[in-house]
Amino acid sequence: MSRPLGVAVIGYSFMGKAHSNAWRNVGAFFPQTPPVRQQVLVGRDAEAVRAAADRYGWQDSATDWRAAIARDDVDIVDVCTPGDSHAEIALAALAAGKHVLVEKPLANSVPEAEQLVAAAASAAERGVRSAVGFNYRRVPALALARGLVAEGRIGRVRQVRASYLQDWLADPAAPMSWRLRRESAGSGVLGDLGSHVVDLVQHLLDDPVVAASGRLRTFVPTRTGPAGPEPVTVDDAAWATLETRGGRIASVEVSRVATGRKNGLTLELYGDAGALTFELERLNELHLHDGLGGPSSGFRRIVVTEPEHPSLHAWWPPGHVLGWDHTFTIQAAELLEAVAAGTDPRPSFADGLGVQRVLDAIERSAHEDGRTQTIHE
Amino acid sequence: MSRPLGVAVIGYSFMGKAHSNAWRNVGAFFPQTPPVRQQVLVGRDAEAVRAAADRYGWQDSATDWRAAIARDDVDIVDVCTPGDSHAEIALAALAAGKHVLVEKPLANSVPEAEQLVAAAASAAERGVRSAVGFNYRRVPALALARGLVAEGRIGRVRQVRASYLQDWLADPAAPMSWRLRRESAGSGVLGDLGSHVVDLVQHLLDDPVVAASGRLRTFVPTRTGPAGPEPVTVDDAAWATLETRGGRIASVEVSRVATGRKNGLTLELYGDAGALTFELERLNELHLHDGLGGPSSGFRRIVVTEPEHPSLHAWWPPGHVLGWDHTFTIQAAELLEAVAAGTDPRPSFADGLGVQRVLDAIERSAHEDGRTQTIHE
Amino acid sequence: MSRPLGVAVIGYSFMGKAHSNAWRNVGAFFPQTPPVRQQVLVGRDAEAVRAAADRYGWQDSATDWRAAIARDDVDIVDVCTPGDSHAEIALAALAAGKHVLVEKPLANSVPEAEQLVAAAASAAERGVRSAVGFNYRRVPALALARGLVAEGRIGRVRQVRASYLQDWLADPAAPMSWRLRRESAGSGVLGDLGSHVVDLVQHLLDDPVVAASGRLRTFVPTRTGPAGPEPVTVDDAAWATLETRGGRIASVEVSRVATGRKNGLTLELYGDAGALTFELERLNELHLHDGLGGPSSGFRRIVVTEPEHPSLHAWWPPGHVLGWDHTFTIQAAELLEAVAAGTDPRPSFADGLGVQRVLDAIERSAHEDGRTQTIHE
Amino acid sequence: MSRPLGVAVIGYSFMGKAHSNAWRNVGAFFPQTPPVRQQVLVGRDAEAVRAAADRYGWQDSATDWRAAIARDDVDIVDVCTPGDSHAEIALAALAAGKHVLVEKPLANSVPEAEQLVAAAASAAERGVRSAVGFNYRRVPALALARGLVAEGRIGRVRQVRASYLQDWLADPAAPMSWRLRRESAGSGVLGDLGSHVVDLVQHLLDDPVVAASGRLRTFVPTRTGPAGPEPVTVDDAAWATLETRGGRIASVEVSRVATGRKNGLTLELYGDAGALTFELERLNELHLHDGLGGPSSGFRRIVVTEPEHPSLHAWWPPGHVLGWDHTFTIQAAELLEAVAAGTDPRPSFADGLGVQRVLDAIERSAHEDGRTQTIHE
Repeated sequence: MSRPLGVAVIGYSFMGKAHSNAWRNVGAFFPQTPPVRQQVLVGRDAEAVRAAADRYGWQDSATDWRAAIARDDVDIVDVCTPGDSHAEIALAALAAGKHVLVEKPLANSVPEAEQLVAAAASAAERGVRSAVGFNYRRVPALALARGLVAEGRIGRVRQVRASYLQDWLADPAAPMSWRLRRESAGSGVLGDLGSHVVDLVQHLLDDPVVAASGRLRTFVPTRTGPAGPEPVTVDDAAWATLETRGGRIASVEVSRVATGRKNGLTLELYGDAGALTFELERLNELHLHDGLGGPSSGFRRIVVTEPEHPSLHAWWPPGHVLGWDHTFTIQAAELLEAVAAGTDPRPSFADGLGVQRVLDAIERSAHEDGRTQTIHE
Repeated sequence: MSRPLGVAVIGYSFMGKAHSNAWRNVGAFFPQTPPVRQQVLVGRDAEAVRAAADRYGWQDSATDWRAAIARDDVDIVDVCTPGDSHAEIALAALAAGKHVLVEKPLANSVPEAEQLVAAAASAAERGVRSAVGFNYRRVPALALARGLVAEGRIGRVRQVRASYLQDWLADPAAPMSWRLRRESAGSGVLGDLGSHVVDLVQHLLDDPVVAASGRLRTFVPTRTGPAGPEPVTVDDAAWATLETRGGRIASVEVSRVATGRKNGLTLELYGDAGALTFELERLNELHLHDGLGGPSSGFRRIVVTEPEHPSLHAWWPPGHVLGWDHTFTIQAAELLEAVAAGTDPRPSFADGLGVQRVLDAIERSAHEDGRTQTIHE
Repeated sequence: MSRPLGVAVIGYSFMGKAHSNAWRNVGAFFPQTPPVRQQVLVGRDAEAVRAAADRYGWQDSATDWRAAIARDDVDIVDVCTPGDSHAEIALAALAAGKHVLVEKPLANSVPEAEQLVAAAASAAERGVRSAVGFNYRRVPALALARGLVAEGRIGRVRQVRASYLQDWLADPAAPMSWRLRRESAGSGVLGDLGSHVVDLVQHLLDDPVVAASGRLRTFVPTRTGPAGPEPVTVDDAAWATLETRGGRIASVEVSRVATGRKNGLTLELYGDAGALTFELERLNELHLHDGLGGPSSGFRRIVVTEPEHPSLHAWWPPGHVLGWDHTFTIQAAELLEAVAAGTDPRPSFADGLGVQRVLDAIERSAHEDGRTQTIHE
Repeated sequence: MSRPLGVAVIGYSFMGKAHSNAWRNVGAFFPQTPPVRQQVLVGRDAEAVRAAADRYGWQDSATDWRAAIARDDVDIVDVCTPGDSHAEIALAALAAGKHVLVEKPLANSVPEAEQLVAAAASAAERGVRSAVGFNYRRVPALALARGLVAEGRIGRVRQVRASYLQDWLADPAAPMSWRLRRESAGSGVLGDLGSHVVDLVQHLLDDPVVAASGRLRTFVPTRTGPAGPEPVTVDDAAWATLETRGGRIASVEVSRVATGRKNGLTLELYGDAGALTFELERLNELHLHDGLGGPSSGFRRIVVTEPEHPSLHAWWPPGHVLGWDHTFTIQAAELLEAVAAGTDPRPSFADGLGVQRVLDAIERSAHEDGRTQTIHE
């Protein structure tokens, strides 16, 4: 056999563009993955989605996602819509026997996420694969970090300090939008950026969060919308401390009003024998302190572009750095490898649900004066 | 008039050495301050304190702090002993009509601190001055930061992210000591490093903390003392979120087990028009984002060594950096200036008490599952 | 009209892969450029080039570059072979009326480069375009830097400090290769990395180099080849000071034995009103000192990902960083724009010749004890 | 026996202040050195020098340096005057049997320096010690660097890249001064900052420079003095490449017009097994790449404040950073140790002469179009 795997991407704005880029390029860098064909790009505006499909290398465009899913030449459905439609589309795709990739967050609520996990489990029995798009797991420096933690290079991790800071809402004059209304967005920065951080904490430590204490804040409570001033009903900053099953503590701070931070995801992991630090705006670097060198030890700036580093064999010679979008290409490759191997890819829908439960606990804690909430699996 | 002001320092180990250095050098750099004379260094071991006094430039040494305080030629008493004797010595010195500088933390408990504040207030009516030694207020970069905040260069501050991380207890084999027993030390890293951070938050924002939520952790619960394994009864890491009267939020993380961090005090202040960041291991630098430059804006690395920068006129030409110990010299100068001017120096005992109350609220919160505690003045 | 422009790339290893990536993606990010079609990838090994063509998205592969050039459906010939075949292929392509992009360096010698310039001038009269692939001009941070210099933001530039340091030959056990033989490689690190640096100096300042003094060194004079030890006949490090027509001085240091540097191109420009610094391993950042902020001025870290920054509108939101390979995509876009507009793209063959002449002067100086050599146009 | 060693400092401005600070503090940090007594500070303005002597802790002040040298209670003469009087004062002091410390540069010309070396050699036979004040050898990070090089931690060093950049003359409106006239200053930035760099290159490598090629430039050829516009007769920027006896190459760039650089001394050493980098504005840090960690190697940021690091036992706990002035205190301690031990301190006058000869060769080369000049010992 060997028809290429047909892909449909639902959504064609920011995430649709990033995912299209991944599907267009994955074969060039990961030739061992099964070949893919960019079958159809789906969106609501027929003309706009057709233009996008042309630009991004798609065979076809469409406005009806149900029809797209139903196509025989589509094997993989990649959901890049806003969170409130993730569940509906992904459930339909799984039911149609298509492998599914869902952009993060998996869903807007825990019940929805639970429903997706159940559907994914059932689909898996039929060989249908599903994954959620926490692309930062694919940053080579973070993949390297996870490996170093797993092999004990920094000893047993005790505490993690994490932040994800942006500033696009710092200006009080920034306008109202659907992202700032609870009914459409589900939550604010906690769900948007906090979900990445929580996933990374659990992923890097390989240890689930079991309790959380949190605080939310809306610094700009009213913004001007099309119809005048309107209340902002989601958080624009959030703080939490998380405790894992293994007894580690992670502190988390996320914000959309941190002036000067554009895409400021930072991580610090402190173990009993070393430490790791990372910042997304310098995503090709990892800083490792593992005590080597005795009194002349210190944090080592690793430029993560060596052929031995995760995924780097696929790209360029040492020192030729990758960008943000390459993480999606790696993500596509790992999904394709799982499909080819008949294994379940990660992060799974269950991973996505795990993140959702932690976010939910943080919100509950914030509404109870910070009291720590337990997370039930 | 014009006898130099006589100084007594009580304590001759780490802090005694740092304060001696300040008194020995203050006149060389701040010639406009009243002249001082290093009269007497006080410690419990007669031979050791005599040797220290010789090294550090003191006229005399002594073992009886009461007698030292009583000397006619002593005008300023500088208390560098462990925290559990601060109150007794400072109260005696104030009662004897001597100006008093107390190393931080002001005292080991809120009631002690309250007693000291009352005594200081009464002494102030008689022209007797008192101050607590939060020397990091004197880091020129932080003095500059406070000025920039006050003049609105980063707009109204919304959130602060602060940490103070060290690693001298990271190794589980590090031995038991008095600092790790609650009865002698009062608290762990929260009191030791957290007090600095809380003071800086309140000082930089000029806005008191009114509520706190916290978490404490002892990662290494047993350590080996002279008589074998012994329980560690204080925290070796602590986390808090603080809310100020003005509605700002500050997150705080302090640790003695953060492998690779030696003296890692970091501060990030985010305002609605800019941001400031600082790290103590590079104490001559301040990073400022104030939007200047339009699309080419960004964090500006200010080397805080220009003559216009706080206290810098006293030292060297631009680019000739200061060290950690210079902050004590500046602290001494500011105390002397207040004495000369007949004004009350800052940070005052009341400032020290304010810090103590915040630390106390964090501890209470930690014992109530993270529930936010209100701070009553 | 509107057949897409057909492209042929000659060469399919490192540079062929990077250029293929650019042609595959240029339309997705720069939709206003004329559409292109990846017609044919050319290489000497039929099987290998066919596999590469499949991976990289080419319609066809071929082993005969002359036949590829002659194809009616090929409009652009992109030469990614080693330097010793640049001239022959490019001349043939121009003669065939095809637009030509030649990887840097333009040629292995000044006479060859001169021949190419003449052919390009003659072709330009017939509307045939040519360009040389100094892709680092397309790093957005460097494009921004050039604009800032041009608009006087750092005043008149006086001195430039530049380096390009790698370490793949640091180990004396690294084997002999064609790159280390003068007859095949033309020169060593001077031609390879020095050409980038010299081009950037002239480009950023918009001021040609008119005199040069230099020094060359082969630190490892013998390496082991297939037939045993063999003399290394090119330089593995080089130094130069360059003087421009406008009287600026640039210092240049390039090396393949700078242990720890992977792709370490650094630039510092000092003007009478400010300065700029850049390093390629952090290619999304530019550091600008323009005196803004008065006594609180300093180097500003600009994250060059704002929509106002050069080429950034084509990519992602602020803070979502680009990688090394994106520079080739931008290069392809700018070539296509010139073709569409009927203008001559830059860097031109004349620019490439200019670089060659400077490199030649450095070599001559090195052979005359460092004596400064004048560059004649 | 045991009268403290009496010190006279000649000169009381910038360097006099820094050296006074060292003598005042050396005993507090280096108690094993022989005790010193700050006998007399010497300057031409009686009133000003008296005030300075009071501030800086001197017993006495004086205007006649000959008389000061002759005092029986003076054992060490520390020459902090401008370079044109170094020779005269130092020769007189040695003749009087006093140990001598001379600020760098040793002298304004090679012949003067040779005379001083001869006098020092003769004095040494009588147990009289002499040293030149290249204080940057005492930066703990650089002392550590030298040790690491000596023990082979970066293998055999091949190339060094060094710069010392300041900007106090960047503004063309900066006024004329004696430092910009050849007759008074001897040379420009080459002698002032270049001497530090050349000394460090030779010191860190323990390998003398034997050949040099150079270039000088005066970017602002006319400045306004008290009597109107006047020609600047010294260099304000200089470049050189140096070759050592052992075949290493060092590139040097020094400038007083490098806008944004305040005290920007940077060093990069590349060996065949590793590399070291340093910058003076962060003088507590050394970056070491020694290959530890295999594929996860990289430059390690060593915070040079551990008790095992050079001179650090004398100061504070780990992470408590030193400043620029501490280097002079360490310099004083090392001189005192040599005096006590009856050994010849380093850097010696011969070291100072060695630097002078290299600077002279650079100047000669600059006047011969960059032709390499050999340095004869």
